[in-house]
Amino acid sequence: MSDDNGFASPDWAELLDREMRKRWSAVADRTEQMAGSALLAPGKMVRPLLLLHSAEATGGDGAKLLPAALAVEYLHVATLVHDDIIDDDQLRRGKPTVHARYGMADALVTGDFLILNVVTALSECTAVPPAAVFEAARVIASAGADVCRGQVREAEMAGDLTCPVADYQEMAALKTGALFRGACRAGAVLGGADDEHADAVTRYAEHLGVGFQIFDDLLPYLGDATGKPATSDVANLRPTHPVLLGYQAAGQRDRQRFAEALSGRLPAEDAHRLMRALLVTTGALERSRQRAAEEIAAARRSLDGLPGEAAVEQMVRIAEMAIDRSR
Amino acid sequence: MSDDNGFASPDWAELLDREMRKRWSAVADRTEQMAGSALLAPGKMVRPLLLLHSAEATGGDGAKLLPAALAVEYLHVATLVHDDIIDDDQLRRGKPTVHARYGMADALVTGDFLILNVVTALSECTAVPPAAVFEAARVIASAGADVCRGQVREAEMAGDLTCPVADYQEMAALKTGALFRGACRAGAVLGGADDEHADAVTRYAEHLGVGFQIFDDLLPYLGDATGKPATSDVANLRPTHPVLLGYQAAGQRDRQRFAEALSGRLPAEDAHRLMRALLVTTGALERSRQRAAEEIAAARRSLDGLPGEAAVEQMVRIAEMAIDRSR
Repeated sequence: MSDDNGFASPDWAELLDREMRKRWSAVADRTEQMAGSALLAPGKMVRPLLLLHSAEATGGDGAKLLPAALAVEYLHVATLVHDDIIDDDQLRRGKPTVHARYGMADALVTGDFLILNVVTALSECTAVPPAAVFEAARVIASAGADVCRGQVREAEMAGDLTCPVADYQEMAALKTGALFRGACRAGAVLGGADDEHADAVTRYAEHLGVGFQIFDDLLPYLGDATGKPATSDVANLRPTHPVLLGYQAAGQRDRQRFAEALSGRLPAEDAHRLMRALLVTTGALERSRQRAAEEIAAARRSLDGLPGEAAVEQMVRIAEMAIDRSR
Repeated sequence: MSDDNGFASPDWAELLDREMRKRWSAVADRTEQMAGSALLAPGKMVRPLLLLHSAEATGGDGAKLLPAALAVEYLHVATLVHDDIIDDDQLRRGKPTVHARYGMADALVTGDFLILNVVTALSECTAVPPAAVFEAARVIASAGADVCRGQVREAEMAGDLTCPVADYQEMAALKTGALFRGACRAGAVLGGADDEHADAVTRYAEHLGVGFQIFDDLLPYLGDATGKPATSDVANLRPTHPVLLGYQAAGQRDRQRFAEALSGRLPAEDAHRLMRALLVTTGALERSRQRAAEEIAAARRSLDGLPGEAAVEQMVRIAEMAIDRSR
C-alpha cells in the first residue's frame, strides 16, 4: 500500500513505522523492551492507518495525529499479546509470541502496560483541543472494552455448533469491529469532523470489522500464511463463521462429522483437515467469502460523499485488502 | 473509618460503596458480571478515598469526583485480578479470585476490561474542565504503567536474596507507590490545585506507598488475616523487605537457611515457618516495621500546610492505618 499513495496523502505507513521504531527501539527497562518486541513485529498497522485516513477523509489533518494512531496500535497489540496467552499460541506474525519468549506473567503485564500507554500516547497530540483528545480517549477505551465483551462471548460460544450466525456476527462486531470503529471515530473526532462525517466513517468501520473477521475465519482453510498456526481455531473449538454456515447447511451425517472435528478429541491436524473438507463440500467456504464481500461493499458505500477523496481512496483499498490479504 | 469523619467531610467511604454497587449490581453481560464480582468484594477503597481527600486537602471539591475515584479502584482491582492469575492465588479478600471462579482466560479479559473502564469513568466527571480530566487520565494511566514496571522488576528479583534493599524500595515505589501517587495527584489535578499543593500530596503518596508495601510484606509473619494465604510470598520466592534485611544481617549459617526457605524446594507451610523464625531471630521483622513507620511519618509531614484540614486529617488516618491494619 505504501508504493502509490498519490500526491495528496503522505506515506503514512512509512511515517508510522518510523515513529514506532523511534519510540520503542531504545528502551528504558525490561517492560519497555517486551512492549517493543511486541510492537516492532511487522504488522500492517491497519488500525493506525484507519485513524489517520478517517481524520483526512472527514476534512482533518492527519499529520497532527501520529501519536493517536500509535495509541490504537498499542491497544490492538495488547489484545494480541493477551490472546496469545489465552490460546497458548507460540507464533504470531511468524515470530515467537511475547509469552513464548518471556513467559506468561511478563506477557500479561506487557499487555497491561500497552493498554495504559494508550492514554500517554494520546497526551502527545498537543495540537488538538484537550476536549477532543479526551473524547478520542473515551472512544478508543470504550472500543477496547467492547473487544473484551466480544472475547468473553467468543469463549462462551466455544464448541457450540448450534450458535446462531446472528450471535456470531454480534460477537465479531465487538471482538474485531469495535477497534476498527474506535480507530475511525477517534480519527474523525481528533480531526474536528462534524457528526455526520464521524458517523459515516464509524459505519464504514463496523462493516469493515465484520467482513475482516469473517475473512480471517476463512484464512486457515485457504492455505494463506498468516503466521498463526492454521489449526488454532479448531484446537480452540471456535465455531467460526464458515463452520456455523456449514453446520447449518449440513445433513445429519455431516453434522456428526462437524461435531467430531470440533470436539477436541482428534489431533489438531486431523481435526483441521476434516473441517476443511466439510467446509468445501457444504459450500460454506464460498458462502462465507461472499458474506465477507457484502460487508466490504457496504463499508465502501458508507464513505460516499466524504470530503477527503485521497483518504477515502485509501480506505477503500484497506477494505479490499480485508478480503484479499495478498494485496 | 466511616464512623467519625467529623462535620466537614461527608462519609466518602459510604458514598463510594453506594456508587460502586449502583453501577455494578445490575449488569448487561457476562463481562460486566465478572468485573462486578471483582469490584464488589469488600475492599477498603483506600485509593479512591485518597483521590477524594487529596482533592479536598488541596482546596477542591470531592463531591464532583466520585466517578474518578471509582476509576482508580478499577485500575487497582484490575492489577489484583491479573496478579492472582500470575501467582495462581485462589483467594482474595477471603473470597475466590476471579480466575478461580471463571478461569484464566475470562479473568485476564476482565482485568483488561477494568483498565479500559478507567477512561469511561473519568468521562463522567462532567463538572470538571476537559483539560483537567484528560490530565488526570494521563496521571492515572502513567501510574498504572509504573505499576507494570514494578511488577516486572519484582519478577526479575524472584529468588534473589542478594538484591540490594534500595532496588527493592524502587520496585515498591513503582508496584505499590505509583497508584497511590496517581490517585492523590489526579485528585489534586481534578480539584484544580496549584502545583505546590499537588506536589505535596504526591510526596505524601510516595512515602505512603513504600510504607504500605513494607508493612504488607510483614503481614504474613504477624498473623494478621488478609484473605491472602500467608504462604504466598515464600511460595512465589519473593525476597520481600524483611527477608532482604534479615538476609543482610544474618551469618553464614542463617543465610543458608534463608536460601533454603526461599528455594521453592520445601513445602510452602514449612518454608513459611522457617522464614518467620529467621525474621524473628535476625530482628528483621522489627527493623522492617520501623522502616515502614519512618515512611509513614514522612508521608504525614508532606501534608503540612495544606488548606483542607478535615481532609488532611483523613489522609493522616489512612497513613496510620497503613502500618496498623487493625484500625
